[in-house]
Amino acid sequence: MNLISKEVMHVGEMASGAALTVPVYRIKGKQQGPDVYIQANMHGAEVQGNAVIFQLLEQLKTIELNGSITLVPYANPVGCNHKNGEYTLGRFDPITGVNWNRMYHFDESIIEPFAKAHLTDSIVEIERAFKALMVEQISQKLNHNIYGITTGQRIAYQLQRLAHQADLVLDLHTGPISSKHLYCPDYARASAEYFDIPHVLFIPNGFDGALDEATFCPWWYLQLKFAELGRDFPITKTATNQGKDAVIKESFTVELGSQEQIDLDVAHEDALGILSYLQYQGVINSNDFHPKTMVRYSCMLEDYKALYSPMGGMVDYLAEFGQPLAAGEPLARILRMDNYGDGDPLHYISLEDDVIPILHFASASVNQGTELYKVFSKYSIL
Amino acid sequence: MNLISKEVMHVGEMASGAALTVPVYRIKGKQQGPDVYIQANMHGAEVQGNAVIFQLLEQLKTIELNGSITLVPYANPVGCNHKNGEYTLGRFDPITGVNWNRMYHFDESIIEPFAKAHLTDSIVEIERAFKALMVEQISQKLNHNIYGITTGQRIAYQLQRLAHQADLVLDLHTGPISSKHLYCPDYARASAEYFDIPHVLFIPNGFDGALDEATFCPWWYLQLKFAELGRDFPITKTATNQGKDAVIKESFTVELGSQEQIDLDVAHEDALGILSYLQYQGVINSNDFHPKTMVRYSCMLEDYKALYSPMGGMVDYLAEFGQPLAAGEPLARILRMDNYGDGDPLHYISLEDDVIPILHFASASVNQGTELYKVFSKYSIL
Amino acid sequence: MNLISKEVMHVGEMASGAALTVPVYRIKGKQQGPDVYIQANMHGAEVQGNAVIFQLLEQLKTIELNGSITLVPYANPVGCNHKNGEYTLGRFDPITGVNWNRMYHFDESIIEPFAKAHLTDSIVEIERAFKALMVEQISQKLNHNIYGITTGQRIAYQLQRLAHQADLVLDLHTGPISSKHLYCPDYARASAEYFDIPHVLFIPNGFDGALDEATFCPWWYLQLKFAELGRDFPITKTATNQGKDAVIKESFTVELGSQEQIDLDVAHEDALGILSYLQYQGVINSNDFHPKTMVRYSCMLEDYKALYSPMGGMVDYLAEFGQPLAAGEPLARILRMDNYGDGDPLHYISLEDDVIPILHFASASVNQGTELYKVFSKYSIL
Amino acid sequence: MNLISKEVMHVGEMASGAALTVPVYRIKGKQQGPDVYIQANMHGAEVQGNAVIFQLLEQLKTIELNGSITLVPYANPVGCNHKNGEYTLGRFDPITGVNWNRMYHFDESIIEPFAKAHLTDSIVEIERAFKALMVEQISQKLNHNIYGITTGQRIAYQLQRLAHQADLVLDLHTGPISSKHLYCPDYARASAEYFDIPHVLFIPNGFDGALDEATFCPWWYLQLKFAELGRDFPITKTATNQGKDAVIKESFTVELGSQEQIDLDVAHEDALGILSYLQYQGVINSNDFHPKTMVRYSCMLEDYKALYSPMGGMVDYLAEFGQPLAAGEPLARILRMDNYGDGDPLHYISLEDDVIPILHFASASVNQGTELYKVFSKYSIL
Repeated sequence: MNLISKEVMHVGEMASGAALTVPVYRIKGKQQGPDVYIQANMHGAEVQGNAVIFQLLEQLKTIELNGSITLVPYANPVGCNHKNGEYTLGRFDPITGVNWNRMYHFDESIIEPFAKAHLTDSIVEIERAFKALMVEQISQKLNHNIYGITTGQRIAYQLQRLAHQADLVLDLHTGPISSKHLYCPDYARASAEYFDIPHVLFIPNGFDGALDEATFCPWWYLQLKFAELGRDFPITKTATNQGKDAVIKESFTVELGSQEQIDLDVAHEDALGILSYLQYQGVINSNDFHPKTMVRYSCMLEDYKALYSPMGGMVDYLAEFGQPLAAGEPLARILRMDNYGDGDPLHYISLEDDVIPILHFASASVNQGTELYKVFSKYSIL
Repeated sequence: MNLISKEVMHVGEMASGAALTVPVYRIKGKQQGPDVYIQANMHGAEVQGNAVIFQLLEQLKTIELNGSITLVPYANPVGCNHKNGEYTLGRFDPITGVNWNRMYHFDESIIEPFAKAHLTDSIVEIERAFKALMVEQISQKLNHNIYGITTGQRIAYQLQRLAHQADLVLDLHTGPISSKHLYCPDYARASAEYFDIPHVLFIPNGFDGALDEATFCPWWYLQLKFAELGRDFPITKTATNQGKDAVIKESFTVELGSQEQIDLDVAHEDALGILSYLQYQGVINSNDFHPKTMVRYSCMLEDYKALYSPMGGMVDYLAEFGQPLAAGEPLARILRMDNYGDGDPLHYISLEDDVIPILHFASASVNQGTELYKVFSKYSIL
Repeated sequence: MNLISKEVMHVGEMASGAALTVPVYRIKGKQQGPDVYIQANMHGAEVQGNAVIFQLLEQLKTIELNGSITLVPYANPVGCNHKNGEYTLGRFDPITGVNWNRMYHFDESIIEPFAKAHLTDSIVEIERAFKALMVEQISQKLNHNIYGITTGQRIAYQLQRLAHQADLVLDLHTGPISSKHLYCPDYARASAEYFDIPHVLFIPNGFDGALDEATFCPWWYLQLKFAELGRDFPITKTATNQGKDAVIKESFTVELGSQEQIDLDVAHEDALGILSYLQYQGVINSNDFHPKTMVRYSCMLEDYKALYSPMGGMVDYLAEFGQPLAAGEPLARILRMDNYGDGDPLHYISLEDDVIPILHFASASVNQGTELYKVFSKYSIL
Repeated sequence: MNLISKEVMHVGEMASGAALTVPVYRIKGKQQGPDVYIQANMHGAEVQGNAVIFQLLEQLKTIELNGSITLVPYANPVGCNHKNGEYTLGRFDPITGVNWNRMYHFDESIIEPFAKAHLTDSIVEIERAFKALMVEQISQKLNHNIYGITTGQRIAYQLQRLAHQADLVLDLHTGPISSKHLYCPDYARASAEYFDIPHVLFIPNGFDGALDEATFCPWWYLQLKFAELGRDFPITKTATNQGKDAVIKESFTVELGSQEQIDLDVAHEDALGILSYLQYQGVINSNDFHPKTMVRYSCMLEDYKALYSPMGGMVDYLAEFGQPLAAGEPLARILRMDNYGDGDPLHYISLEDDVIPILHFASASVNQGTELYKVFSKYSIL
């Protein structure tokens, strides 16, 4: 039976003085091993990850563990509790409109000087020093700011400070109405098959403010800089190194399906997939967890396309998620009752490419220009 | 082939001067018969009724018609277009919070004087005069108001003016996440079986501002007053009168399922059920439309109970809609990850009565006191 | 130096489990005297009352007190913290649209049996028993509800339970953009002159869900019922009783000006006006606080009219608050740039009566039917 | 008397099919001269610009004009009409959170090839060709997009297409609660003194998605590229060229004061300041309009600092706008009633630099991290 410790992290204050707090759970293995960070619910409506953390904790109680796991449900107490009408308005700060998952920090300018200064250090020394540098940077931003930082930055930075201390980072999200899919750094392709997720997006590079990027980009950029300077600095498990002599650094955004829903039984399944990945990475001492056999489709991030509605109207979404849809086949039909009698009340929407529909908008009512679908436009089988 | 005429009704103006308009479709039969009024989408997110009107119009093109049918999709252009986040915030005026379906008008004080003045008139004269009186009252409210009327009243009164000219009124709504159910005046029980809707709520009396009540209550109260004064004034079809020598006056709120969804195939089914009722009432000259065979449950309005969440948390809704649930069986389980480790992270919610769950809240995230479920608490088989 | 005690009242839970809490401050005098209850910020944007409570506490530290004063700032932690855009969306529950200040409880059916049962009791016995009955009723509603109560009821009932234990109740609100005004029970007219508020609305009767009504209506109805049964039961200070042999029961809604603003200097002035009333009622042992000399206008509640905008547009509010405006003089002009060139871009709005403008809408942008102004339509000088 | 023509531009569709339209006014002078584009109300709550366009049109009717002026009030019909509570939620798309004024287009990659291809062309030829290129680019984005464009892009691009056809662009905005200030391209410093605006921000370079940048950056970058290639290509009036042999290209964001307000008298003053600038640029044939004498402060954009609240609470804003505030002097005091009795209920906020406060947040209620103030942190007298 593993011991689970709990801490409450203070991440902000509301107008009434009410503290914004986040529970942080930690389990520590008896052996050395990778440190894992898992958070959920950064976007207010994306709640299923909390149930997955529940099921993970239930399982982890009795699994032999190497390293440590830190789990943070309800990561964003503003978004989590922000209602407007029945739904949770939690993708962006209601005051500023800024997406809560675009506020993490990465300062590329630290890479080159660090690489040069530590070119000949051991892997272990590099890892310790670079981790410390990143944590220190975040602490500086949190504590030494004359003009202050935004509500979202304060939340994001505190989470990021925890995440930087880990080797493997999972940020649990959901789509609006969505299939399960995984954002995976391009260099960690091999790991994607250990999750029970049939659709995988490969992120080739670049930082856009999300947690996964904020935690893997520094290591990736460091790897590239070291390569430029002539040093091999592996950060993922490969056929040759098998994780030996490497600092494994991987971050994923795990999209668990649709928002505004909790399903504890599905969460149990989701937890098994994550345990499969953790077993592969040697975090748990077990041979019980294996990825399901399934067709896995992949797509490069730049080929993951949003289709914006060509008209206002009310949408009957037709396309099945996760299955290839032939060019010309309808994704949706849009009802325009105002055109009945003197126009065209029904419009079929299709694309000129074969695509795999991954998610669609959460409501039937769309304006001209609302994001209708996101699709894999050029996909391969993984 | 019936001719469908279309008109655009101006129901208000936005801050930019943009006109708020509503399309009004009319089909007129060659023979005399009941006049029908059908509207949809008074609540912004309850869009399926628009698709049902589409399917009704498609069918009605070629059905022989008695009387007339007026159909109004997109009845509330403010609610219909009001987004906040991805969802449609359309249950209440975003400025005032007033429920759009609580703004219709009924002035009980007109009943007694009218009944006394028309006690010995013929049924036809009474009908004509009472209709005229109601329409005139609404017109007065729309046009002769020194201090003005609210945005919602202006919309509601214009719809109501159309509805008062009909004999049969259908207001198409949906629940949040919901089974199909029907609000039916208690005196019109016999009609409930002609719809393809398995759950029926009987409204015993009283006016609470909704369109169905605003259109049937005046006639019902008039019937009661006439009865008090010694005159029989039937307003529904019975075994004995078969609708002869009666002014049939019925209004229903038809709850078509869940909000934020358009499904044109389901809408076709929904339209068939409405056509079954219209055939029963002699509006269409056909023998093609018959109610489906199904178990129909009914419940008095006072026994239709809202269950408010006893705690804040995230809800895994368990109970199946429309099926009797035994006392003590769980309706939902509520996850409280913040209690993990030092409290109870999972709470099962049940009731002490046998109930039929009809609908539940649209989001997994609830505050203490959020309406979790609505249930038939004392039900019968119809 | 008076001792101020502080307690934190738990009034609800959010989806994340976060507790909704309200601070409750109490000061107790050394002598017997009236008990006072003062709350602020039931509507989220109406924050000035919190500053007034701050200034009251600062003053009350050193004033000799009879009886006790309970002060509750931030009375509604949901409304208080609910942002949408920059402003605070705090007039109604964001999920249901129900006005937070329409959820208090009053059950008229308790009056007659109580009056009959206690007809010959002493004033002191009646007071104690009736208070206990009301508190018990609220406790029942809070604690013995099978189907639960709404979020707003839970908050309101807990505040009301505190308020029922007091004799004098002040609910501190503000208008949108507003002059200071006071809602005063009709029977307590004499008290209105002790506040520094130039506009007074007299509430003749009736319960509409607000705190002031919920606390004075029971006593008033009891007085009326006793009178019907032949017993005099004074509940306000008069020239003859001077408060002796009477249970003084008064409740006011104090409208402190405009919402979304804190001004501590103005709050100091507002506090002085309240202290003047408390001195008049014998709550404080002082001769330092006297109402300011000013013209005070009064108006019956039924003559307090809302003017709804006759068109959509953008409003230049012209009328000065608190000053009589002659019939025909413009209250506002409405810009309609979309009409420039081919219509009338500027509309002047006036009324056919002399009125006193009291408040206007918080934004220049109005829809047709938005409440533009509230005015005293028939006013007198107090 | 000048002729004002009016056109209605279709910029989108809502879910009900309602067209989103924007009125476009044009006045054409008899002589050649600069073309001017003025728009207002891109952010929904920033309405005063509509009143300024009204007053400009009233004046321009009778002023002799060179060139042409295009005026677009209500530029964003979604934002303009989007209410949530009493206020207008119009800074960002309510569905996506994207700021409406960050969706304009600029593709830097067109500069170098164009400059090389047109290096030896005449100024007039360059101007014609570059304008055509920019207009063509926007048209491509509007009309040839397989996956569509967002609601905000559709609105922004249509406005931008009009703006690219002008030489001088004014985008009328307001702050939340704000002094008047002007965003001015650094190269056009000389023009800043012709507006009646005491605070000027100089934009040194860079494109961040706003209209002013989207229209002046292309010309500025072109100028820089030409300079690099050895050609002088003036785009602003200077002491030596006096506008001869130059294509004058200037764009300004004019911040007119506070949002949610219309004041037609102030708008008249604002219009006079704009006419002063237009006279300076030779757009109007007049000698009647001269800038007011006033102290004008300027600040580089990078020194325009946002101060984020160090705590949640309710703010009494103290600092006067537009006046230098000495280091250490309080900008605001923050009330924290929940700390009364056992903490510090009042916090004074100050800065370590001398600053000029320019605007503050629109509400007293702030979370930790809400933008309290924006200030000129290093300012000069212009």
